[in-house]
Amino acid sequence: MNDRYTFVLIHGAWHDGALWAPVSEHLRIAGHTVHTPTVAGHGKEADKQVCHADGVRSIVDYIVANDLRDFVLVAHSFGGTIVSRVAEEVPERIRRLVYWNAFVLRDGESIADVSPPPYNQMMDAIAAERGDNTVMLPFHVWRDGFIADADLATAKHTYELLSSEPYRMLTDKVPLKTFATLTIPKTYLNAQSDVAMPPGQYAWFPRFAERLFPCRVVHMPGSHQVMFSDPAGLASKLWEAGRD
Amino acid sequence: MNDRYTFVLIHGAWHDGALWAPVSEHLRIAGHTVHTPTVAGHGKEADKQVCHADGVRSIVDYIVANDLRDFVLVAHSFGGTIVSRVAEEVPERIRRLVYWNAFVLRDGESIADVSPPPYNQMMDAIAAERGDNTVMLPFHVWRDGFIADADLATAKHTYELLSSEPYRMLTDKVPLKTFATLTIPKTYLNAQSDVAMPPGQYAWFPRFAERLFPCRVVHMPGSHQVMFSDPAGLASKLWEAGRD
Amino acid sequence: MNDRYTFVLIHGAWHDGALWAPVSEHLRIAGHTVHTPTVAGHGKEADKQVCHADGVRSIVDYIVANDLRDFVLVAHSFGGTIVSRVAEEVPERIRRLVYWNAFVLRDGESIADVSPPPYNQMMDAIAAERGDNTVMLPFHVWRDGFIADADLATAKHTYELLSSEPYRMLTDKVPLKTFATLTIPKTYLNAQSDVAMPPGQYAWFPRFAERLFPCRVVHMPGSHQVMFSDPAGLASKLWEAGRD
Repeated sequence: MNDRYTFVLIHGAWHDGALWAPVSEHLRIAGHTVHTPTVAGHGKEADKQVCHADGVRSIVDYIVANDLRDFVLVAHSFGGTIVSRVAEEVPERIRRLVYWNAFVLRDGESIADVSPPPYNQMMDAIAAERGDNTVMLPFHVWRDGFIADADLATAKHTYELLSSEPYRMLTDKVPLKTFATLTIPKTYLNAQSDVAMPPGQYAWFPRFAERLFPCRVVHMPGSHQVMFSDPAGLASKLWEAGRD
Repeated sequence: MNDRYTFVLIHGAWHDGALWAPVSEHLRIAGHTVHTPTVAGHGKEADKQVCHADGVRSIVDYIVANDLRDFVLVAHSFGGTIVSRVAEEVPERIRRLVYWNAFVLRDGESIADVSPPPYNQMMDAIAAERGDNTVMLPFHVWRDGFIADADLATAKHTYELLSSEPYRMLTDKVPLKTFATLTIPKTYLNAQSDVAMPPGQYAWFPRFAERLFPCRVVHMPGSHQVMFSDPAGLASKLWEAGRD
Repeated sequence: MNDRYTFVLIHGAWHDGALWAPVSEHLRIAGHTVHTPTVAGHGKEADKQVCHADGVRSIVDYIVANDLRDFVLVAHSFGGTIVSRVAEEVPERIRRLVYWNAFVLRDGESIADVSPPPYNQMMDAIAAERGDNTVMLPFHVWRDGFIADADLATAKHTYELLSSEPYRMLTDKVPLKTFATLTIPKTYLNAQSDVAMPPGQYAWFPRFAERLFPCRVVHMPGSHQVMFSDPAGLASKLWEAGRD
């Protein structure tokens, strides 16, 4: 059985494609081909004055320019809002969609629309203070909410790798006119200690898996940043999530 | 401490008793006695024109004919609807009831009554197309919904072992007049990645464990078909679920 | 990085401080300092005619008498109702609060107020029968509800270590006027097979983690009494829950 795949990994907010390195290395060692494009507006050197549609366009362009076909398209967190639109644009190129603790939006929703009001208030305040239409995550939120399964040194080191997020990525309403009709196989991968969305009614699981269903569901231990705290484990689960 | 038990394992829909072989082998190696009767209407050679009460009767008859006593009665999935009625018929013979991702019905309910409407619509359409009062599970539902934790070869191989299910097993309303009053100890065993019932309000857990409570609760990794993907792990958890 | 902490462990109902021994030994071997004071009214020799405020006072007194500072304050079960009040009294001494399958009350609530009505009815009946303002847990509830992950011999042995609980600890309404305003970092540690609170709407998780949020969340396998069934595992997770 041919069990080697092409993976295209779409990062979350505050991240860029290069931060997948520990995970993509494990996937490549296992024989897979891996692409980790950066969404427009992301990375320390990027122009941050972009909208959500710019982000979508940048990934569609990458896929077309590299003529990628028959690949597993993986999204982390914010990346879920990108891949749903990408799937509408180039559905015939995608073998399977994998949402790893990623947002599954409905037509016309933004990330803010599906986030807890206290989060939106925190982000609004941060955006107002920064004054450049970007937001940054406070370290204490990162440490306890995003990466509690790593030691403090790893939490601090990885925090330095982040860069500010164009606020429109979180607040633009995303048109998803045809996503619900697509027949691409889908998987929801859930790290069980991920509380970047808080426990209860706003939790990632089962909320976004329900929206995606019927889909494969895969669970794993770990936090929202298990890509840093256990990259080998995440690579293994991405394979389980993405295989035929 | 005497920790060797007699287990009677009742299979789910599309299955028959012989499919427990990998699990029952592990239980027997550990010193337990294992019975795996087939519910009437199940298996490739069976007469499928049977009702739910016929299924119950076949298991009660097996227990009485073999004079089984003091056994742990385990149900998987559809089997839960059988063992609740069996427990009403021969309560004094049962040491403990174990529901492994199994339906826990209330008096007068059918499996269809506690299943998501899209499932029932899918099954109705399949039954109408087959025209013989039986239903079969489409392979894509089996692969992603029932056995996502196995590789594709195992998913395909095990699919070939299944046989069509008498539709009345899923749609007959089951009388359970005395079940709620029985004092037999009970356990709910939940495989955490089981999405044969979808994530959210229709999920196996905590829905059916709540109906069974007070009961022991045991969790394990795996899908609805962890009997095929990890039979040793399931055997170990059935022991943990069934012991005193 | 200095990763050695002082832990103060507050036991649950029917327990006393000495029962932490298997866990505290593992923490001490790892280099931590551990205190396991007994809440007033607990232990086989204690005066049971005490109220909840007496319990709180006994722990505050212990902390002040030993001049404990900069410690991780851990609560198990009922202990959560104690540490929330202790945190109001000596917030400046506490480095982090860890609730391990512990009650998180709101101002003016009792444990009975957040427990399932059938539990309260059972406890009322037990208290009435005993006639001394204390309650004891029936063995069958202990075995299946509290410690199903241990073998029967361990369940029986540990049951003998328990002592009756002053009923007012479960029924007194606890004033928590300032708790919600405290900025002490907090963690909710959840043992995933803990059904001392039943599955569903009354479950520990996510209910009490939601009340504590924003907080770190750590999951582990095990029952309500994983302190007996896996003390090394619990010690490791208490460290993960309590570290910076």
